[in-house]
Amino acid sequence: MLKGFTVPKSPFGQAALTPPPPWHYAGDVVGVEFWTDPDATAATLPNGLSPDPNSNGHAVMMFLDWQFTAQDDEYLEPARYQYREAFVLVDAMYRDVPVMWCPYIYVDNDAALARGWTQGFPKKMGSIFQTRSFAASGPAAAPVAAGSRFGASLSAHGQRLAEACVTLQKPVENGISLLSRPAVLLRYFPRLAAGYQDKPAVNELAMSITDNLTVAGAWIGKGELNLRKRMAKSSTPSRRKGSSQDSVAHFPTQLAI
Amino acid sequence: MLKGFTVPKSPFGQAALTPPPPWHYAGDVVGVEFWTDPDATAATLPNGLSPDPNSNGHAVMMFLDWQFTAQDDEYLEPARYQYREAFVLVDAMYRDVPVMWCPYIYVDNDAALARGWTQGFPKKMGSIFQTRSFAASGPAAAPVAAGSRFGASLSAHGQRLAEACVTLQKPVENGISLLSRPAVLLRYFPRLAAGYQDKPAVNELAMSITDNLTVAGAWIGKGELNLRKRMAKSSTPSRRKGSSQDSVAHFPTQLAI
Amino acid sequence: MLKGFTVPKSPFGQAALTPPPPWHYAGDVVGVEFWTDPDATAATLPNGLSPDPNSNGHAVMMFLDWQFTAQDDEYLEPARYQYREAFVLVDAMYRDVPVMWCPYIYVDNDAALARGWTQGFPKKMGSIFQTRSFAASGPAAAPVAAGSRFGASLSAHGQRLAEACVTLQKPVENGISLLSRPAVLLRYFPRLAAGYQDKPAVNELAMSITDNLTVAGAWIGKGELNLRKRMAKSSTPSRRKGSSQDSVAHFPTQLAI
Amino acid sequence: MLKGFTVPKSPFGQAALTPPPPWHYAGDVVGVEFWTDPDATAATLPNGLSPDPNSNGHAVMMFLDWQFTAQDDEYLEPARYQYREAFVLVDAMYRDVPVMWCPYIYVDNDAALARGWTQGFPKKMGSIFQTRSFAASGPAAAPVAAGSRFGASLSAHGQRLAEACVTLQKPVENGISLLSRPAVLLRYFPRLAAGYQDKPAVNELAMSITDNLTVAGAWIGKGELNLRKRMAKSSTPSRRKGSSQDSVAHFPTQLAI
Repeated sequence: MLKGFTVPKSPFGQAALTPPPPWHYAGDVVGVEFWTDPDATAATLPNGLSPDPNSNGHAVMMFLDWQFTAQDDEYLEPARYQYREAFVLVDAMYRDVPVMWCPYIYVDNDAALARGWTQGFPKKMGSIFQTRSFAASGPAAAPVAAGSRFGASLSAHGQRLAEACVTLQKPVENGISLLSRPAVLLRYFPRLAAGYQDKPAVNELAMSITDNLTVAGAWIGKGELNLRKRMAKSSTPSRRKGSSQDSVAHFPTQLAI
Repeated sequence: MLKGFTVPKSPFGQAALTPPPPWHYAGDVVGVEFWTDPDATAATLPNGLSPDPNSNGHAVMMFLDWQFTAQDDEYLEPARYQYREAFVLVDAMYRDVPVMWCPYIYVDNDAALARGWTQGFPKKMGSIFQTRSFAASGPAAAPVAAGSRFGASLSAHGQRLAEACVTLQKPVENGISLLSRPAVLLRYFPRLAAGYQDKPAVNELAMSITDNLTVAGAWIGKGELNLRKRMAKSSTPSRRKGSSQDSVAHFPTQLAI
Repeated sequence: MLKGFTVPKSPFGQAALTPPPPWHYAGDVVGVEFWTDPDATAATLPNGLSPDPNSNGHAVMMFLDWQFTAQDDEYLEPARYQYREAFVLVDAMYRDVPVMWCPYIYVDNDAALARGWTQGFPKKMGSIFQTRSFAASGPAAAPVAAGSRFGASLSAHGQRLAEACVTLQKPVENGISLLSRPAVLLRYFPRLAAGYQDKPAVNELAMSITDNLTVAGAWIGKGELNLRKRMAKSSTPSRRKGSSQDSVAHFPTQLAI
Repeated sequence: MLKGFTVPKSPFGQAALTPPPPWHYAGDVVGVEFWTDPDATAATLPNGLSPDPNSNGHAVMMFLDWQFTAQDDEYLEPARYQYREAFVLVDAMYRDVPVMWCPYIYVDNDAALARGWTQGFPKKMGSIFQTRSFAASGPAAAPVAAGSRFGASLSAHGQRLAEACVTLQKPVENGISLLSRPAVLLRYFPRLAAGYQDKPAVNELAMSITDNLTVAGAWIGKGELNLRKRMAKSSTPSRRKGSSQDSVAHFPTQLAI
């Protein structure tokens, strides 16, 4: 009897890409809130979600440095279990509930990819970086203070897909406000057999519930975000880029779940 | 209506991890055939497969450098579509049909990971290398000739999991013999909802059929293979390693599908 | 007495980044010859080299997949000794000798970086890929034949710096013609002590001599090349790109030294 | 006139691997102090340094996550300028001054490699990880508190070279004590011309002076350290490992320079 929450199933269950839930995370965050063409965000929604009529193209892009652990001190093996992530969330409606939808997300770790697919996050592999803040002061320390700046970037397969920079203005009390809506995701697993390739084996919306989310040290400020059109494409190396308008920077912040 | 064979689904279908099938491959191969404890191979089999009573622990480990293309000249974007792979195949029986089963497989590319999961290959990310042969002669060229040696290795998360070396003896006519059995794989997609984590949404055996496989330049010789016990484990950094016995090296070879 | 051709020096000399010379290489090549503004190539020349008045901005960009070996079967450890490289060569004059000068070059391996610095190649780290040709035929095999296309790319730190594509027309007899001039390079090692940072410890031109270069299977055809201005910059993420004109594609080819 | 502190020299100086000094750093540190065979540390010393008769094989291994900046806000481009580092320091005497000597050091960034060579650090490329501490509390947060554990690892070319784990006991006032001796390094640049390969162009000891070093949040505790013999070898995949004895863990800590 093979064991394991995901493949590879194995005699003792230790080969699986990820240990079984519950899963715990702690991380640094840099994020930028922005408003784009409402038709553009609407075009990313799956069946079952509808545009939020009050949202006016509201979206957020977040960059995260994560530390993961499950029940077996995985955080002590950072080469395997730390990872970085970047994603876009757009406003949407699930029936009459305001929710967020994640059209695109990148990580640099296969365990995170596997957990993400299971939840409905459509993860691909990428390289993600963000400026960090250090307690010891000096020109490279990027203190959490008014006027401090934090850069972030996402690349995949050697192509830069997104760049952000935020300038801090002041702390915010409710650091969690950007994540106040529940996320609705698409769990999806295709069939490969001829004649069934458009009849997926799993194709269901799922609401992602995060327990015990705590936020420390959240700040708000000004943000810049450059997105390359390529982020939504796999094969055409076009290089136009759009700039977000009216963006509001959030963080840096530390999250733990 | 979102499009794409896999996630991420997107308005034009171009964000998907992989273009839709049919998929085509060409590659270099170094492989080692070996015989291990029959109980060890039997312990890796899923429900629905049984040990091959005639196999005596027969298995093969292969290292491949792949070039992929679908219908849109993907082979012209090698940064995205070339990849390397290493896997183990063990003999098994599906009812009364002799088949191969793939317990462990590693790639260095997310598109290959996604295609693999769809087929039932339990792919994880790794770093895979093999000695190559070049036509221009010289001390670094590793010609395909009697006595030539080819090394190969697999690592994941900075840990070396397997090392192989083959020494060529003579060409073989039937270069495809190592792959003469069909592969039976496990398509698997878990549920994450509380109470259903041991009731996967997809859990089915699938036979993988490869059309139009051609093999060029296959050789046979002697092989060495060192496997680290870690390959089947995600979290325990034990360092014992086993050596295969009676191994027979195959290749280098070029495959196209 | 510490040993080793480069740092780290160590008791048995085995820690050094590279084994001592002689060094041997075999590789695949995709290259594009192009003509740009003669002032642009002249601006890259060091003291001691002058523009070639007959060259009209002639340059070449090459992408190489290398296998390296020294005296100890290093080619059997491909994870450590295979590497990929991309570089630009421009025409120049050393006194009255027509030579090539290498302003920019990228590799994905630290041993290659160390050897390069020793020779005078100003190597940085990058990700380099090229379409390969496989003997077994199929849609992904990219045969060496008229009309076949080969892509290549260079990225560094998640930014795409160069993309090339060549379309083969016919074999060439003298596959080595692109490398017919000797390369003159700049061996350079700065001083760090205050007051001496503009007085380098080593700052000398060196002519690079390659013994026993053989070339197999060279073809000529049409080429495209897109260079990002960033290749020559370390910190400004500008995104303009230039296109080469009148480019002539060379190869794919295999070299051995 | 080409510009740049290191190669590549270029018309505007922007292609150089690293911007010119002064250089500033901020970072997280996990370190383990250990005592090994005094003959083993003595064997790593270059001409001009002698064993410290009072040191009894004292050494330290440190793992660092660095953020770098020079004069142009480089810390806002973390994909290019953040890096990770692991190194060993051993006690030595320079004439009658107690100093530290760095026999082996690894980084994951080419700008750091170039700066290191200039200073005399014999840097090679590797993958380095350490458990981090996050302010928001939770099972993955690894708080800086008595009993907390921090793992760290170093790999190169897919081989694990060192693993450490520290368990915190109590804060220390003088967090800088492990770095209280000046470091003496070997600036070294070989000649490649035939007949001169053992007559390096640069071969000089240099004392590394760090200005304005500040340390925050240093703790002391118990440490474990496993070193693979391979760290000092480039080509022989032996797998013996040694364990340090009497090790004393230091940190986690944050440094800024």
